[in-house]
Amino acid sequence: MKPIKKTFFKLSILFFVFCCPALAQKDYKLWLQYEKKTNSKTISDYLSNIKGIVVLEDTETLKIAKNELHTALNDMLGNKMQAGAKLEGNNTIILGSKLALSPEIQKEIGSGFDLINDEGFIIKSISVSNKNHIVITGKKDIGVLYGVYHFLRLIQTNKPIQNLNIADSPKTNIRILNHWDNLDRTIERGYAGFSLWNWQKLPGFIDQRYVDYARANASIGINGTVLTNVNANALILTPQYLEKVEALANVFRPYGIKVYLTARFSAPIEIGGLKTADPKDPGVVNWWKDKAKEIYKRIPDFGGFLVKANSEGQPGPQNYGRDHVDGANMLADAVAPFGGVIMWRAFVYSEHDANDRAKQAYAEFVPYDGKFKENVIVQVKNGAIDFQPREPFHPMFGAMPKTPLMMEFQITQEYLGFSTHLVFLPKLFQEVLEADTYQKGKGTTVAKVVDGSYIKTKLTGIAGVSNIGNDLNWTGHPFAQANWYGFGRLSWNPNLDSETIADEWLRCTFSNDENFISPIKKMMIESREAVVNYMTPLGLHHIMDTGHHYGPGPWVSNLSRPEWNPVYYHKADKNGIGFDRSKTGTNATSQYAPEVEKLFDNVKTCPEKDLLWFHHLDWDYKLKNGQTLWDGLALKYQEGVDQVKNMQNIWNKAEKYIDNERFKEVQMLLQIQYKEAKWWRDACLLYFQQYSGKELPVGVEKPAQSLDYFKSLKFPFAPGN
Amino acid sequence: MKPIKKTFFKLSILFFVFCCPALAQKDYKLWLQYEKKTNSKTISDYLSNIKGIVVLEDTETLKIAKNELHTALNDMLGNKMQAGAKLEGNNTIILGSKLALSPEIQKEIGSGFDLINDEGFIIKSISVSNKNHIVITGKKDIGVLYGVYHFLRLIQTNKPIQNLNIADSPKTNIRILNHWDNLDRTIERGYAGFSLWNWQKLPGFIDQRYVDYARANASIGINGTVLTNVNANALILTPQYLEKVEALANVFRPYGIKVYLTARFSAPIEIGGLKTADPKDPGVVNWWKDKAKEIYKRIPDFGGFLVKANSEGQPGPQNYGRDHVDGANMLADAVAPFGGVIMWRAFVYSEHDANDRAKQAYAEFVPYDGKFKENVIVQVKNGAIDFQPREPFHPMFGAMPKTPLMMEFQITQEYLGFSTHLVFLPKLFQEVLEADTYQKGKGTTVAKVVDGSYIKTKLTGIAGVSNIGNDLNWTGHPFAQANWYGFGRLSWNPNLDSETIADEWLRCTFSNDENFISPIKKMMIESREAVVNYMTPLGLHHIMDTGHHYGPGPWVSNLSRPEWNPVYYHKADKNGIGFDRSKTGTNATSQYAPEVEKLFDNVKTCPEKDLLWFHHLDWDYKLKNGQTLWDGLALKYQEGVDQVKNMQNIWNKAEKYIDNERFKEVQMLLQIQYKEAKWWRDACLLYFQQYSGKELPVGVEKPAQSLDYFKSLKFPFAPGN
Repeated sequence: MKPIKKTFFKLSILFFVFCCPALAQKDYKLWLQYEKKTNSKTISDYLSNIKGIVVLEDTETLKIAKNELHTALNDMLGNKMQAGAKLEGNNTIILGSKLALSPEIQKEIGSGFDLINDEGFIIKSISVSNKNHIVITGKKDIGVLYGVYHFLRLIQTNKPIQNLNIADSPKTNIRILNHWDNLDRTIERGYAGFSLWNWQKLPGFIDQRYVDYARANASIGINGTVLTNVNANALILTPQYLEKVEALANVFRPYGIKVYLTARFSAPIEIGGLKTADPKDPGVVNWWKDKAKEIYKRIPDFGGFLVKANSEGQPGPQNYGRDHVDGANMLADAVAPFGGVIMWRAFVYSEHDANDRAKQAYAEFVPYDGKFKENVIVQVKNGAIDFQPREPFHPMFGAMPKTPLMMEFQITQEYLGFSTHLVFLPKLFQEVLEADTYQKGKGTTVAKVVDGSYIKTKLTGIAGVSNIGNDLNWTGHPFAQANWYGFGRLSWNPNLDSETIADEWLRCTFSNDENFISPIKKMMIESREAVVNYMTPLGLHHIMDTGHHYGPGPWVSNLSRPEWNPVYYHKADKNGIGFDRSKTGTNATSQYAPEVEKLFDNVKTCPEKDLLWFHHLDWDYKLKNGQTLWDGLALKYQEGVDQVKNMQNIWNKAEKYIDNERFKEVQMLLQIQYKEAKWWRDACLLYFQQYSGKELPVGVEKPAQSLDYFKSLKFPFAPGN
Repeated sequence: MKPIKKTFFKLSILFFVFCCPALAQKDYKLWLQYEKKTNSKTISDYLSNIKGIVVLEDTETLKIAKNELHTALNDMLGNKMQAGAKLEGNNTIILGSKLALSPEIQKEIGSGFDLINDEGFIIKSISVSNKNHIVITGKKDIGVLYGVYHFLRLIQTNKPIQNLNIADSPKTNIRILNHWDNLDRTIERGYAGFSLWNWQKLPGFIDQRYVDYARANASIGINGTVLTNVNANALILTPQYLEKVEALANVFRPYGIKVYLTARFSAPIEIGGLKTADPKDPGVVNWWKDKAKEIYKRIPDFGGFLVKANSEGQPGPQNYGRDHVDGANMLADAVAPFGGVIMWRAFVYSEHDANDRAKQAYAEFVPYDGKFKENVIVQVKNGAIDFQPREPFHPMFGAMPKTPLMMEFQITQEYLGFSTHLVFLPKLFQEVLEADTYQKGKGTTVAKVVDGSYIKTKLTGIAGVSNIGNDLNWTGHPFAQANWYGFGRLSWNPNLDSETIADEWLRCTFSNDENFISPIKKMMIESREAVVNYMTPLGLHHIMDTGHHYGPGPWVSNLSRPEWNPVYYHKADKNGIGFDRSKTGTNATSQYAPEVEKLFDNVKTCPEKDLLWFHHLDWDYKLKNGQTLWDGLALKYQEGVDQVKNMQNIWNKAEKYIDNERFKEVQMLLQIQYKEAKWWRDACLLYFQQYSGKELPVGVEKPAQSLDYFKSLKFPFAPGN
């Protein structure tokens, strides 16, 4: 560090220019940046339509709506109005629910209210007494809040606000985050720090972050949150914790968010002092009824329970010779008097069941169709294994026409690179939702099962396993915020297009500059296929390392339960690779509707993206493009790596459009992703090469390390385990 | 939530006014708020003396100094200069280390450089070629950075900047934070979330927070950080982790902060594959030498190791029949070639030693005086037990005239209400530093032992067990930031007054308004005595609950080691209460210099604040104010509760001076503190009352719950355990 100039008169002079130390503020603000518009024409156009805000009600929710609108407009359009602008009874934004509207305004809305449900909103340009206004309304005040966020999104994304006539409602009832948060604040499969819920300081201390969390969720239509891990601790149901839960519920309520908890099935024993948790035992039944009463006394709008029972070691009704129906219905009866719901997870598989694991949930649950109480909804993961980079849609969707089924997506990237890999999940979600189950003929998409248009059920819902932690940027990766955002938007409308979501999110979060939007949106959309390619191409699945699930581990074969081992899933041997789930194998294909069954069963019609999910094929099997399976597989791995390299190139060109802090964060993370993509490629190909006995095809980079090296890697403190 | 108004024409109208959603930004900015000055006279006065910045060097450190000055001045004084201000060669701030200064400027500084050490700085108003300037310089560039922070503090606190002539240097060499952070990111005794160090994403991802951490530390003169827990994990010394440590060291270096690690004594076995960790074993000696070489190759300015050995189950030289000198010197030899330091903790006590625990560290270490290598410094806690609300100074201070001793303070409030209680620790630190050891006659204060003016040693230092976590506000409580700040300031100058520190911190963090400063400063200063009163008045100590140390537990008596039980410390019985450490008891008083020994030994001269630390006294013992010990004790507990109530009253009046977010946070936390102060009072008095058999005196509130209730409380997930 030697001085470069010694003469006073040769000094370089610095004038004061605006320059802020980086403070992670943008990271924290998510998609609610409300960046000041830079184009004066844009500003004046908006301002000519917005001269004031009028609020017709004084509820907590309307106060929030008002503050949000007020602050956001001020931030985006400048505070010119503050300097003496007077309301001239023209061009105001009017906020109020249906009953608060004057007859004149109600008349202007006309039959609009018939188009929306209780959570829906209407945004309409109206004329009253020859004055133009924009009214944002709904049947209830939460609709007004949703409408405000929609209206703000129009401005965030530079959309026109003339002649508005929008009526929109959520397509599902339960739009909910599942936090796998433990009471010690560790998060199972959490990669963005630790739990937001500071149980130690609750109920006395309300962290501002709880409010900001509720605000972010409300802005994308999420209306429920399960605070605790599905691998549950009964203590959350004790008064000591319920007092804390109540405090959170009070914060979330005006944002339209209900609180739910996970119910540990053995709680009557662990905290109730009973000898059994048998759902048919009258003492147990009463214990849960009393517990529900106790909870609802504190939290009148408590949502209900999410239950993981008889799954991966969790207790459940089967411990007492009962079944899932017995367990779920018993709990359903306890919460029914208060309007509560039981979300009963179908994620079950047994080490004692010799069946293909992919078949077990269907086999166990489908016979229960029609037997659950009406306030039970069965929560089904998007695929039959476990949140892999790609899975065919779960065969349960559409297969239980008398039972409400809700979707369980995983937003946290347990199997998709943690929070270090940029993977835009709405693309994955959309693929699942668009999949056609054919259960009621062509067009019976998973989305239609989920949104209740397949069978009219009282309950519909979409759950997302949260990727939120106490990192400054909430989700660990700036682009992981898009997955939270996208989940919320899809839970509101399962038919939304992932490209639309990416577009919205980028504009709200970063910039409206088309030179930024166009390449970065493309990068996001392609990112999902990239992770499939460099981790598990052509239908491979569950070949990650054990426990923490960080990095590749196709060689793992020593775990106590067969279906926990990667070798169970890829079945690579000298004869080939892949899991034969066709008729010649486990016949898992038969769980689908005949049209789908046929498609998957026949190796010629089976989509190549799902090939090794359903078929065990020779290394020399010819792919559609003429490559052998071995060559094709290797080239897919290489393609994934190349795609990440390309993402880096695209991102590097984004520097001038956005703030330096987030630019650099993403740049560093893409560098890690590139390194790890190569790790996956090299480790998997070296491992499979032992069986194929073939050279890597031209175009695939030579591994930089040996298979033994990759097998030797240990990560004792990898997060989320 | 019913609508309150239905008529359009009766609407309440809101104009846009400036209003920001709370975003925890102020909380995050610590004492570096750089709030815009509101008084235009103040601004113009400053601006008349500051027209530009001149930077003489291009080092990383000077770039940081420049950016900090530049941003801060801009934020505090407005960016008027940006709009066309031109340097006219007058009133510039000149930044550069000694060698970079022109002869003219060097002449102006004169003999100033003789007054400072290598980390010191000079801020001087000078005149060169008839132009006035302010020069900020030092012997090295880090001095310039420290000078910039000092200069900014003048402006932050509204001090004049005319005719400056300041020369200041740190009084200790090692000013260091000890992070008790584990590799899984939990923090032992951490109450502000989890570890900042995201080992999973290091080295590839450099969190902005690492930079902001370094910046905050540099601003208060902290120049070292031990990244890992003293209860150490050897894995930190493996290449996999050293690569990550190196990345952090690279971030911290330009801020003048060296990285240190904790060395697990058994590392040669655990990660080295050796059969022993015997410090006399040549293989072990070589292993550590090689390990040091490996570390210094990555991190040339690596600070060295902090070691907890043969203490609370940690391995150490005694496992092999060696002693602390053998262990420390072996490690010292390993790092000596590279300029490294060994900080060897004196926090030892044995379950096999029937001696009073308070005596054991002295008994074990004082005989080693003069035997340690010159790059070893012995790290001694401020008191002989363990970071209690109040302890007499540790008898080791001044008792080892041939050995460098460094102070270990605890900033994290393990025994002082976690991060929920407002306790201004610099008051505690000052009390210890001011204590007179009399070891070299009157005036041999602990500060003089620590700052090297008692014996001239090459090494001096102050360590603080960090209260920093990944909470948005860093320390869990807005006022706990003051403890980090105050620790840094005292490590720079152990003779600083805690009131000065509080004043500085409040002005930098909240406001310069005297109506705010005066009462809140008083509240801070008194807060330390409040916590002593409501937890452990009159010399009581170590009566907290077990494990997590949350709340009172004077009844705990069933732990396996006698000296872990609260009953060991208070010794309450029918005859009275207190630990007799006088000649009639364990004679711990004899470990002090004769003047101090006499003072403590005689119950009449022993300060009442330390009474029950040194004496077991009858319940009817008469205190100086005429009260019986029982009554006095009870009234002290009540006084502590009343003091918290008073803090609440004071704080409630602060609302108009500061931002709403931090106001409310502190308000909520004080409410919890009040509740917990009453809990301490009630639980302890009910427990002791069993032995005193006396009524509570008039003025003490009746407990709201029974002793059994308090004993029944369980906190299985209390943090930091």
